[in-house]
Amino acid sequence: MMTLYDYLDSGNGFKIRLLLAQLKQPYRWIEKDILSNETRTPDFLAKNPNGRIPALELADGTVIAESNAILWYLAEGSRFIPDDRLQRAKVLQWMFFEQYSHEPYVATPRFIVKHLPADSPRQGELPDRMARGRAALAVMDAHLAKQPFFVGQTYTIADIALYAYTHVSHEAHFDSAPYAALRAWIDRVASQPGYVSLYQRPGSSESVKA
Amino acid sequence: MMTLYDYLDSGNGFKIRLLLAQLKQPYRWIEKDILSNETRTPDFLAKNPNGRIPALELADGTVIAESNAILWYLAEGSRFIPDDRLQRAKVLQWMFFEQYSHEPYVATPRFIVKHLPADSPRQGELPDRMARGRAALAVMDAHLAKQPFFVGQTYTIADIALYAYTHVSHEAHFDSAPYAALRAWIDRVASQPGYVSLYQRPGSSESVKA
Repeated sequence: MMTLYDYLDSGNGFKIRLLLAQLKQPYRWIEKDILSNETRTPDFLAKNPNGRIPALELADGTVIAESNAILWYLAEGSRFIPDDRLQRAKVLQWMFFEQYSHEPYVATPRFIVKHLPADSPRQGELPDRMARGRAALAVMDAHLAKQPFFVGQTYTIADIALYAYTHVSHEAHFDSAPYAALRAWIDRVASQPGYVSLYQRPGSSESVKA
Repeated sequence: MMTLYDYLDSGNGFKIRLLLAQLKQPYRWIEKDILSNETRTPDFLAKNPNGRIPALELADGTVIAESNAILWYLAEGSRFIPDDRLQRAKVLQWMFFEQYSHEPYVATPRFIVKHLPADSPRQGELPDRMARGRAALAVMDAHLAKQPFFVGQTYTIADIALYAYTHVSHEAHFDSAPYAALRAWIDRVASQPGYVSLYQRPGSSESVKA
């Protein structure tokens, strides 16, 4: 059985929980509290030397890190990755967009707002990060005005990757009012079969049963 | 014929030039001066709404953005991506590491040092960015102390992705002295068949001939 090292509030971790639920794949779930640096212990660094969750440990002990690489590993051969070479590249294009142009500017502000003290010097990062976050949301909204999902006509792991932090961007006080196509897409993703919520803690028994 | 929109000094663009040379694939090369915002014109934004190079335009006009997605598109089915499912995920793991934990902290300092004025307020970003950059280089060095290339025993697009900015990190005043395994790997990459340099400008005739 696979083991997912994760932190409940992490959108990056939620990507994997959502896909595993939709693949109906059982797994063990172990929470690592990133606020207490549980991902920087020698034990955890032996699993992922980059000291981050999520990390997926396979039955043989091999560990895969980076949420979007884990998504790709789990989804290869399933309906969540297209077969067409160009469409596969487009799935990756949006996943790299997510990690480079979206996550640091949508997820990090949410982390600062939710988890850091009001007088943390990092609060000063918010104006620049949120301006870039709004630029990323606008790029997504313009694309979704033309098609129902990020790649082609169907739901793929590109949607999972971008949904994870977008659907909770209000927690960082992003205003979704200007982005009608984005809001409609959020509803479409949430209505996919097998959907679970970010705040739904996988119990070991539930996850084994899944 | 494919067209690569690029900027000579860009490591992200260089990734594509290097792979195309090693695949012996001809292409048209069009430079966009990012310092003059040539990637933010309406014409270019119609090609890549995220306003960044590199962007690869296929013969039918389709455009692929994000350097690592372009690498994957070009390398699928070649010796530069392994066939094994786990190894493919590991290639992606290192490419996502590159864009999230390396590029903003190794490439961006180089950009600030090389292209921004000495009194730019962005110079103040250097201490934090370079500390994180050294952390990324240390993760790479520890991994390369155990194996010759990032994934398995052979050179893949994961090496291309990580080499692009690592081999010019001295231009941002990173000191490579602590990283013996990393330095040996840089030499191994530079000795691969078909290697070209970051500063080798693809002439249209040369690139067509390539």
